[in-house]
Amino acid sequence: MSTEQGYFTEANSADVVISRNAKAENKRLAEVMEVITRHLHAAVKEIEPTEKEWFDAIMFLTRTGQMCNEWRQEWILLSDTLGVSMLVDAINNRKPSGASESTVLGPFHVANAPELPLGSDICLDQKGTPMIVAGRILSTDGTPIAHAKVDVWQANDEGFYDVQQKGIQPDFNLRGVFRTNDRGEYWFKGVKPKYYPIPDDGPVGQLIGALGRHPYRPAHLHYIITAPGFETLTTHIFDPDDPYIHSDAVFGVKESLMAKFEPVSDPARMADHGFEKPFVEVHHDFVLAPAK
Amino acid sequence: MSTEQGYFTEANSADVVISRNAKAENKRLAEVMEVITRHLHAAVKEIEPTEKEWFDAIMFLTRTGQMCNEWRQEWILLSDTLGVSMLVDAINNRKPSGASESTVLGPFHVANAPELPLGSDICLDQKGTPMIVAGRILSTDGTPIAHAKVDVWQANDEGFYDVQQKGIQPDFNLRGVFRTNDRGEYWFKGVKPKYYPIPDDGPVGQLIGALGRHPYRPAHLHYIITAPGFETLTTHIFDPDDPYIHSDAVFGVKESLMAKFEPVSDPARMADHGFEKPFVEVHHDFVLAPAK
Repeated sequence: MSTEQGYFTEANSADVVISRNAKAENKRLAEVMEVITRHLHAAVKEIEPTEKEWFDAIMFLTRTGQMCNEWRQEWILLSDTLGVSMLVDAINNRKPSGASESTVLGPFHVANAPELPLGSDICLDQKGTPMIVAGRILSTDGTPIAHAKVDVWQANDEGFYDVQQKGIQPDFNLRGVFRTNDRGEYWFKGVKPKYYPIPDDGPVGQLIGALGRHPYRPAHLHYIITAPGFETLTTHIFDPDDPYIHSDAVFGVKESLMAKFEPVSDPARMADHGFEKPFVEVHHDFVLAPAK
Repeated sequence: MSTEQGYFTEANSADVVISRNAKAENKRLAEVMEVITRHLHAAVKEIEPTEKEWFDAIMFLTRTGQMCNEWRQEWILLSDTLGVSMLVDAINNRKPSGASESTVLGPFHVANAPELPLGSDICLDQKGTPMIVAGRILSTDGTPIAHAKVDVWQANDEGFYDVQQKGIQPDFNLRGVFRTNDRGEYWFKGVKPKYYPIPDDGPVGQLIGALGRHPYRPAHLHYIITAPGFETLTTHIFDPDDPYIHSDAVFGVKESLMAKFEPVSDPARMADHGFEKPFVEVHHDFVLAPAK
């Protein structure tokens, strides 16, 4: 590309801006900025913003950064609600045929959750409808993977994670790390998840509200599954009967991630699992891709 | 557009996100977000960012907002350095043939600068090379425009505006509002402008530095010219001999905005203008477009 493109005009605008990067030592950054500049200028030419619209955009972008603090990341929320986070996830996690699909990590994972014996109840405050989750971790040829690490976390019956309600929920409520047994099996108890809104009291909430969109995520359970020799799988399972299953505010739902949350009210089965009220039962297997 | 696009996939990502805006009451916002979403997803697909690159971008965007305060607007600086501000200016100020071209307003205009008699010296601290500027304000048919308002401002000999050096420069240094006489003429005294860097101690400065770009704007003088019945003209004149004239950090230079800064060291002419040292003389006429 020529470094001498002449002066900026409406017609040559992107080329002039891009030509300035000819001396960049970081070639990847220059390549990324070339793509961004080209699409940015094309978008501005299609939109033909008024000067007021341009300034409104500047102020929206400014407020989005200023909303961020130690526990709130409004820019990730914007990336999530515009489908960018899921697109980056898709690009970085193209799976071989038969392997389970990934979805967004979300902001509520905690690194040091306790490792628990199989069958433990991660619901520490006994609120909501009890749930038992069981399944197997398999390789793409169907072989069970023993000693795989299954890190799970979920929101409570009211739609909040423990870290959003410090002092209200017990620490590490609804989190646990399990290891599959020799047959590749895992199982644990939790609580039936419920839909909840993403934080919508900031610029991103205002934007999606103005677009006629709701802020809800359908009920789901988070997993990170790791095993030596396999790609790590970060994913959710979803309740297909959730009212927001077709309109997840962050686009995380995939057909293959549906699980059946089966209601059980048979007293004998309740007694089998040590539950004193009706519960839901979920069976879900995951298939890990071989490490690259 | 269908509101039921099925679940998000890498292939249909932009369509799924756009389909969610079907119920937006603000149709212009929905149209703008459709264009942005389409280009954003296309750019992500071309770039194929790693998860780390995506997170680095999130943190850059966050810091850009957090750098903003009452007197610093880092998002405008990003818009300026990516050529977006000039593109929005170009789109909003397409001029009829013969009218003077516009350029960026910049962040240093002050609304209430003093109105001064023609010929006044706006340089209140006598620093730098004296300058006399003169010209006419004309309509596109060449008729002089009497009583046009000519609002001018400039950086000092060290490249700073008065508002950047409160307490160092006199208030309203190098600012003034003049009215053309019956022959459409204006003239005033100032100081020969010099190139200066845009504020480069924030995320935008880091970005352009990493791209091998310098932060300098070539020497220029700002104008806003208003007259009843004509479009307001916001523009600069530039010194074509400036070392940065071909690489303005904010892309504001246009061929038609070049002026000649003519050095004068003839003692008789110095005495004519009341200067005690050599000065520069600038003649520049402006042509206003008729009001739409």
